[in-house]
Amino acid sequence: MNHAGAGRVIGVFDSGFGGLTVLKALLQRLPGAEFAFLGDTARLPYGSKSRRTIARYASESARFLVEEQGAEFLVIACNTASALALDAIKEAVPVPVLGVIEPGASAAARESESRDVLVIATEATVASHAYAAACQARELRAVEKACPLLVPLVEEGWVDHPVTAEVVRIYLSELLEAARRVGYTPDMLMLGCTHYPLIRGVLERAISELAAPVRVGVIDSAEAIADEVVALVGPESGVAELAPSARIRCYATDSVEKFERLGSRFLGLPVGKVELVDLGG
Amino acid sequence: MNHAGAGRVIGVFDSGFGGLTVLKALLQRLPGAEFAFLGDTARLPYGSKSRRTIARYASESARFLVEEQGAEFLVIACNTASALALDAIKEAVPVPVLGVIEPGASAAARESESRDVLVIATEATVASHAYAAACQARELRAVEKACPLLVPLVEEGWVDHPVTAEVVRIYLSELLEAARRVGYTPDMLMLGCTHYPLIRGVLERAISELAAPVRVGVIDSAEAIADEVVALVGPESGVAELAPSARIRCYATDSVEKFERLGSRFLGLPVGKVELVDLGG
Repeated sequence: MNHAGAGRVIGVFDSGFGGLTVLKALLQRLPGAEFAFLGDTARLPYGSKSRRTIARYASESARFLVEEQGAEFLVIACNTASALALDAIKEAVPVPVLGVIEPGASAAARESESRDVLVIATEATVASHAYAAACQARELRAVEKACPLLVPLVEEGWVDHPVTAEVVRIYLSELLEAARRVGYTPDMLMLGCTHYPLIRGVLERAISELAAPVRVGVIDSAEAIADEVVALVGPESGVAELAPSARIRCYATDSVEKFERLGSRFLGLPVGKVELVDLGG
Repeated sequence: MNHAGAGRVIGVFDSGFGGLTVLKALLQRLPGAEFAFLGDTARLPYGSKSRRTIARYASESARFLVEEQGAEFLVIACNTASALALDAIKEAVPVPVLGVIEPGASAAARESESRDVLVIATEATVASHAYAAACQARELRAVEKACPLLVPLVEEGWVDHPVTAEVVRIYLSELLEAARRVGYTPDMLMLGCTHYPLIRGVLERAISELAAPVRVGVIDSAEAIADEVVALVGPESGVAELAPSARIRCYATDSVEKFERLGSRFLGLPVGKVELVDLGG
């Protein structure tokens, strides 16, 4: 990566391109930083794989960002890798590493009054109970639900579609029912997957209808981690500002075409040319 | 694999466990054979990956079945690998290899009167146009459509669910409309993915309603390839028949728990203990 005159390099890693929603939030908050984003698309989805496999894949990806891209700070914009492989990643690289789970739980702890939180995520994230543990450490109670159809619906582009609204309604009804069975009174819904911000409107409408008259707020873990990165690295000033698209370089281990086609929806601006890298997987 | 007194070993390969629908059809048709099934679950889904990556993964899997499991015949029960990697697999192993595309197209050629065929499959299978090419070689015209939501719906267990019916209706309406636009009059619907037999009823009802008064038959490529294997290896007689579950051994590269839990639905009987193998991916 060419560092000519630019600020520090922050590495952002995801199993796919969903983590571009985190990169989007970071670009807005850190106008002086450069970013190297790696999507391990050859081996996605991590969500249905074992801890051992995820730890190996994520560590290889982290080393690429630090050793080959010069990242001085690593953001794990993948809920599954954050839930299952954060310790392995920290052992693999000599720079600070921040996962997406803890900032999300911290945001919930700041905003929840009832101290009960709903969490939706992939199968592997839910099976790890990482959000529940992070919530418990902050004296919050969490009820979690795996929603495996939401990522495919977002990737199909059905982000404002009656089928997606119906699937969301079914998942959230079941989740609220599970919360009621154990006597919880949730007032926050955690979006525990980086794909979910693209259907935030659908999720907000559904939870608002289903939980009424209780008001349930939505926590986007992509925004929560971006806020925490800013708190940790500090806002950078005195650096010439480049256009957002000039401050990012995107890499993928496969499916560059799909990354380029779908990635812009997640990033909110063109991802530009995505470079293919081979991690030997 | 223990061969004591048993018939030949047939290797069956898929990226996941969907190919168990092919194994199910083979078990019924070849009561004297033994089967080694490998699901490359650590690296699924192949459907969204590139030809180069799929060829590498599939070749490694084929070598495992032939070199370590003694398979004398290899069935590629994965539409994506059959579409994109059949030549690579044939180069990788010294035994006969049969992919799932050609038998499906042959069945369509036998049964279609209008000579126009609808094909539904994963994104990568459709992008390869392998079914269209195999149909064209048999003087059939094909219209193909990628249906990326159907696999996640089947894996969620929503096989008889209003959302699945609605998604199927949307996909098949768009496919029929595409066929009408080019002036085709299809009378066959090819299920170009091994997950689809589990929602065959939903698909049959939808195509029957949407295409009426034209009658559109359904071709299950899992059954088509099983018929062709029998034609090639011959029905085996004179061998003591074992119970179906005693004639199969299942291997997975990851997610053994998910394989065991979901696999039985595809096989129609318990898959038994699934062994974990490491292909170095």
